[in-house]
Amino acid sequence: MTLREQAAQGQITDAMRVVAAKEEVLPADIRQGLADGTLVIPANNQHTWIDPIGIGQGLFTKVNANIGTSDVSYDLDTELEKLRVALDYGATTTMDLSTWGDLDSIRDTLVRASPAPMGSVPIYQAAKEAAELGRGIIHLEPEQMFDAVERHAASGIDYVTVHCGVTRQGVDRLNRYGRITDMVSRGGTMMAVWMLANNRENPFYEHFDRLLDIAKRYDLTLSLGDGLRPGSIADATDIAQLTELLALGELVEACREAGVQAMVEGPGHVPLNEIEANVLLEKKICRGAPFYILGMLTCDIGAGHDHITGAIGGAVAAAAGADMLCYVTPSEHLGLPGPDEVREGLIAFRIAAHSGDIVKLGKKAQRRDDAMSEARRALDWEGQFAQALDPVGARALFEPSLGEGDTACAMCGDLCVFKLQSEILNDRGEPVFPVLGKQKTRLPIL
Amino acid sequence: MTLREQAAQGQITDAMRVVAAKEEVLPADIRQGLADGTLVIPANNQHTWIDPIGIGQGLFTKVNANIGTSDVSYDLDTELEKLRVALDYGATTTMDLSTWGDLDSIRDTLVRASPAPMGSVPIYQAAKEAAELGRGIIHLEPEQMFDAVERHAASGIDYVTVHCGVTRQGVDRLNRYGRITDMVSRGGTMMAVWMLANNRENPFYEHFDRLLDIAKRYDLTLSLGDGLRPGSIADATDIAQLTELLALGELVEACREAGVQAMVEGPGHVPLNEIEANVLLEKKICRGAPFYILGMLTCDIGAGHDHITGAIGGAVAAAAGADMLCYVTPSEHLGLPGPDEVREGLIAFRIAAHSGDIVKLGKKAQRRDDAMSEARRALDWEGQFAQALDPVGARALFEPSLGEGDTACAMCGDLCVFKLQSEILNDRGEPVFPVLGKQKTRLPIL
Repeated sequence: MTLREQAAQGQITDAMRVVAAKEEVLPADIRQGLADGTLVIPANNQHTWIDPIGIGQGLFTKVNANIGTSDVSYDLDTELEKLRVALDYGATTTMDLSTWGDLDSIRDTLVRASPAPMGSVPIYQAAKEAAELGRGIIHLEPEQMFDAVERHAASGIDYVTVHCGVTRQGVDRLNRYGRITDMVSRGGTMMAVWMLANNRENPFYEHFDRLLDIAKRYDLTLSLGDGLRPGSIADATDIAQLTELLALGELVEACREAGVQAMVEGPGHVPLNEIEANVLLEKKICRGAPFYILGMLTCDIGAGHDHITGAIGGAVAAAAGADMLCYVTPSEHLGLPGPDEVREGLIAFRIAAHSGDIVKLGKKAQRRDDAMSEARRALDWEGQFAQALDPVGARALFEPSLGEGDTACAMCGDLCVFKLQSEILNDRGEPVFPVLGKQKTRLPIL
Repeated sequence: MTLREQAAQGQITDAMRVVAAKEEVLPADIRQGLADGTLVIPANNQHTWIDPIGIGQGLFTKVNANIGTSDVSYDLDTELEKLRVALDYGATTTMDLSTWGDLDSIRDTLVRASPAPMGSVPIYQAAKEAAELGRGIIHLEPEQMFDAVERHAASGIDYVTVHCGVTRQGVDRLNRYGRITDMVSRGGTMMAVWMLANNRENPFYEHFDRLLDIAKRYDLTLSLGDGLRPGSIADATDIAQLTELLALGELVEACREAGVQAMVEGPGHVPLNEIEANVLLEKKICRGAPFYILGMLTCDIGAGHDHITGAIGGAVAAAAGADMLCYVTPSEHLGLPGPDEVREGLIAFRIAAHSGDIVKLGKKAQRRDDAMSEARRALDWEGQFAQALDPVGARALFEPSLGEGDTACAMCGDLCVFKLQSEILNDRGEPVFPVLGKQKTRLPIL
């Protein structure tokens, strides 16, 4: 039985208990969320060494890190290093998006090395193998597409992106209304060119029941891909994107009926004033299914620094209810990220996720900020490093002030506000600033 | 006459015309904004080599970069280098916040080297000089405080932060209701400890007319400081902060009556769901005065990467109407930024400002994003670098795909979506993907 089926029958499993403890909620709440389809625990029944995590409503916002080879870099050690950096820097899940080298072997090695859930995009492998046979993507048989999904499931992958919402209707509407960047999803583009060349419907849509069969056997979570996501600010929230979302809403229901766990992927490049609407639409149309977004990126011109562009939109989306953020690294739009870019991307997106959680989860998320602020006021540097999302990076930039025995940092030196407040005495030798640390938490009015 | 007085009399000056051209608005609109007090052109009449810029309603969001010495670093060449980096990377203004070395000489040198507006915080100098005389901040005479402002004005500084809203009422309320981090503004803390030690009102508040006299003589813009800004998420939008804002609202009116240009400074650490309210409150209470914010930072635990934390909040605030963002560098909370951190901070905040402008100004701001997206679809790399906010950084991360004569980057290589869309042919040799670039701009429905 899948976790969803067990939850529907009222069973609380170990995985649900582990997730409940991490999230500081009741196991019964996790069971209910699984039964309702508002949260998922991606955990392939072949990935027995997994440390389960939950993604969805009421839970902390998660961060995914994409790793994997491309045609300029297909060194397995580099990918293992990227996996290690990703997990060290707090990735909740990783996705192996490899498109070069021995994909089966790379994936097996990465899954074996990962206690965290791992996702993948099986159509990449089908496309690569078709290309190697000199036949090209458009000559793929649907059978080969489903076979790729099955092979990924068998290797213990916990969730797969399937671009099943790229329908003929969606592509027709894209064609009719146009965009600047048309399609920017690789898997979505593969499906679209196949459909156009063969004048046929998307096999993942038409035969979605076959995906459900595979998913059920492995308790594979389906991550319903957004092949028609906008790749530029100009293209956001348009007819093609919403046509796909409506199709995904129907497929989410099919997953629920089949006892299969599902989440929904989302954009992409979206201006700041359309992010909340995008989250709302997904939550309404897909009736509360977990929303897994890429970014969102709030402008198109941040190349070289799009981890920041994406963190801006990711934070706003998380605050509005997005459940998992796929990180963007500084290399986005320019090249394949290496370990350094993986680290930078993760830090940016953990800041984003946490900024959203302060809104979404309140005090439970803010406890760490309050502890940081207490340490800051006390000029307790070790206490600050302990609370920082990146203690190593924080320590590397810490520069003590020169004053002998000084506790302040070099930004303000002797003019540090906390020194001024605690050390300045009046003529009677008493501190002039009486309020220090008088009240430690804000009144719970908000 | 100050620019504000000229505007009130219906005169359109060269500075107004220059600003109008940069902002793509009519000179009459700039004049009206100056007369209404909804925008400022900080341009000291002694800073004759200035290239004027406008800050305020209807204009592009501006970014300020703080530079200046502290007790671990007081090398003038380093500060000149930081100024150069700041201007190269698009700072609209800089502030010299030096607190160590020969402050008059450092400031003169920096102003002379800067065609961009420069701000400062004169109370730092008063405090430093008091400390050097062995007397300490609390023994400063009000006369010395005003004298510092006058000296900064005489050296051509275009705007000064004056913490005139830190009143006894505000400090009393801070004391009564408490906070985690009490006060985090250096200038604000200096005023507060002085007031508490001397049992007197803030001289900049009590004798605000003296500031107006100085400001009028030099056409010095007053940047009304937020000494009671929150320094932690827990302290945001509290009674102390709003008490100061109400005082600043009154002082804005006093500036307007005196013909003096004024802007209002704002927080600080603010959770995502309180940012819009903070912008709204400033705009309402200060009747449309330009809002110059620090950050805003959306969590407290980003140390080492708070340029990202600040860019998240800065973008949301800009979209909501904030007019200038004071950057935060990776060194914030940890040490004094060097040239590298100045660059990183500026890039992050220019992404933030631009993301806000897409919302605030629409197509006028988005033109560059559209051009970037066009170049992206065409795999025109030089075109992309030309549109990127940081062409140097983007080029440094660009990694061409290995394929011979290949135009894609290494992220996707042969599986680049734009290659798939343009190069895959059907059996009749026609491209299967017909929609490419069919329509270049979104229908103007939003």
